[in-house]
Amino acid sequence: MSLIVQKYGGTSVGSVERIQAVAAKVKQSRDAGHQVVVVVSAMSGETDRLLGLAHALQERPSPRELDVLLSTGEQVTIALLSMALEAGGCPARSYTGSQVQVRTDSAHNKARIRDIDGARVRADLDAGRVVVVAGFQGIDEQGNITTLGRGGSDTSAVAMAAALKADECQIYTDVDGVYTTDPRIEPKARRLARITFEEMLEMASLGSKVLQIRAVEFAGKYQVPLRVLSSFQDGEGTLITFEEGNVEEAKIAGIAFAKDEAKLTVLGVPDQPGVAHKILGPISDANVEVDMIIQNIAADARTTDFTFTIHRNDYGRALEILQSTAQDLGAREVQGDERIVKISLVGVGMRSHAGIASGMFEALAREGINIRMISTSEIKISVVIDEKYLELGVRALHDAFGLSDAS
Amino acid sequence: MSLIVQKYGGTSVGSVERIQAVAAKVKQSRDAGHQVVVVVSAMSGETDRLLGLAHALQERPSPRELDVLLSTGEQVTIALLSMALEAGGCPARSYTGSQVQVRTDSAHNKARIRDIDGARVRADLDAGRVVVVAGFQGIDEQGNITTLGRGGSDTSAVAMAAALKADECQIYTDVDGVYTTDPRIEPKARRLARITFEEMLEMASLGSKVLQIRAVEFAGKYQVPLRVLSSFQDGEGTLITFEEGNVEEAKIAGIAFAKDEAKLTVLGVPDQPGVAHKILGPISDANVEVDMIIQNIAADARTTDFTFTIHRNDYGRALEILQSTAQDLGAREVQGDERIVKISLVGVGMRSHAGIASGMFEALAREGINIRMISTSEIKISVVIDEKYLELGVRALHDAFGLSDAS
Repeated sequence: MSLIVQKYGGTSVGSVERIQAVAAKVKQSRDAGHQVVVVVSAMSGETDRLLGLAHALQERPSPRELDVLLSTGEQVTIALLSMALEAGGCPARSYTGSQVQVRTDSAHNKARIRDIDGARVRADLDAGRVVVVAGFQGIDEQGNITTLGRGGSDTSAVAMAAALKADECQIYTDVDGVYTTDPRIEPKARRLARITFEEMLEMASLGSKVLQIRAVEFAGKYQVPLRVLSSFQDGEGTLITFEEGNVEEAKIAGIAFAKDEAKLTVLGVPDQPGVAHKILGPISDANVEVDMIIQNIAADARTTDFTFTIHRNDYGRALEILQSTAQDLGAREVQGDERIVKISLVGVGMRSHAGIASGMFEALAREGINIRMISTSEIKISVVIDEKYLELGVRALHDAFGLSDAS
Repeated sequence: MSLIVQKYGGTSVGSVERIQAVAAKVKQSRDAGHQVVVVVSAMSGETDRLLGLAHALQERPSPRELDVLLSTGEQVTIALLSMALEAGGCPARSYTGSQVQVRTDSAHNKARIRDIDGARVRADLDAGRVVVVAGFQGIDEQGNITTLGRGGSDTSAVAMAAALKADECQIYTDVDGVYTTDPRIEPKARRLARITFEEMLEMASLGSKVLQIRAVEFAGKYQVPLRVLSSFQDGEGTLITFEEGNVEEAKIAGIAFAKDEAKLTVLGVPDQPGVAHKILGPISDANVEVDMIIQNIAADARTTDFTFTIHRNDYGRALEILQSTAQDLGAREVQGDERIVKISLVGVGMRSHAGIASGMFEALAREGINIRMISTSEIKISVVIDEKYLELGVRALHDAFGLSDAS
């Protein structure tokens, strides 16, 4: 008998019928002899409905009261799922974040979990019950209701699995696993049976929306085996594993990409110590998140060129700030481009295989795709290219690295 | 500076606009120098929506899970009202029943309040905040969420006022006070500026729906001054007072009535000790509530006639039970009438004024209304009459006892 934590998102519990389908899936696991803890989100649409009410009353709703409001969404789902389970002959008991003592810091709307008291849950499991826990929510030291921010239910599930030392944390979603790349762009994309934790972390941070990055980090920290599965069809999904040796032989696990990027360059900045900080300080003060950063010696060897990428939504604001900074620094010119994308190859196999980078550049060159920026880490290579080449680039790399389905 | 607890029902907080109107009313009280605690219900319609979801999943929803589900209704309202208050420049903080420690027994769906810990609320009031508390809900000793049953928010407000030793508990509703009788039946009915607690208790138990009877009982037990007011118009409402001396001179405070009554009579029951128990035992075993009970010696002096009233919905069931009992007891006959109503005169003045009863009988006789049953207590006289005379009877008594407006 093993202990499994299952997490079902808002789409999976979006109606009475879907809640019944989830109850059937949970019962199946329990009938197979497992102890099951279920973590659920609010029914799809509910969070937006509540946000609509809040914004009708206050332009910037009080963060504390917003958490009181939004946490009702999951509370509705835990009660309904428990009823569906009991109606199907499966004893169940629900707990809010407060009842099961999901203790967080006091950062309302984006709280971080500190610890979970699993005692009550364990007692119920030992009594033969399925335990249904509200995701996304907790309480701080003063007993105030907190929420983890959108998508936080993944993190709740992983934290619960860690607290209970569960054998597996299963994230049920609307896709049936992690793919070599987005199948909407490359129809030959293939589901991965396994992926390493490090690869998943890179994929998540690079724009793959299958799992919340904080949930993956949490799983890594507490070594929780994580599996991504579909709520709507049977299958093994994708196991996120900590054992590199067991991983498929491929050098590359997958291709991630981020649309909606923009880049900014300051040309001819006098090359002095501290120049990077002088350029990026005002940008980060304005709460603009910077992704890739590249600095090169300029042609004249006494000045430097400095380039970084940001989200496209922040482009106008960042450009304005940068122009003012450039003037202060006596830089020659500011250039910008808001029509770029980032494509990344991810794979732990990269570590031991030379030539991945050159293979990547070659495949792109063959299609006439110009590379604007390059950035590498131990298990990924990212390139920035013009937006119009996104689909072509992804498909070319998918082919070049043999990621397509054998069939 | 006084401490006031205000309670707003579901209709009063039924939309964003109405919540804003409530916030304005609350702010008015605070600006007048009062400390204000607000107790709210779920937005009108919300409880029914949630019940609909529950019943779609489970024929008889688990009582524990039903409380988890329904308690979200008030939680939404406290967050929204707090936002509306803060948007209006009035510092506010919300608390669920669990957070403010409304401790109840474990009778899910109809729990009774044991005590409330007012410490947190007092600290917020002293810090200049309005405190917004979810009505209708609490927690039991094990930390399970409980609800008080429909209408329980009145009781929550009175209990909160008792715990805080508030100067007044104001129940805002869709009528502007307690009337001498139902204005839909007697247009000349007059709002009472004051009514004694005992009279209010009789009025509530006799069918006046202005206040929940448990809330009135609670107010009596803890001597909480209670005031009924309209959410939608300004006015003094009706104060429920404990000082008889201050009450208006009238002997009669008001006229209550109960429609949908039915009566059953067993004729010719052998008059032995314990016969009342033998007749009513099976009725109460079937969970039929009995209201008035009358026993008379029959004409032959060796048998007795036994009559009682019940709610009309229980008539068929009770009749069947009674016929079987009558046979066992060797009674002569069972008669029934499901088209009767009860009209009651209520007033503490009755104690010291003879002739109220005869005045009542005379007024009804003048209209040709036949009295079927009579029952009296220290501050009320009730008569049972044919249903068709309800309106005529109420208006005749309203006139006879000078309850109509002077104008």
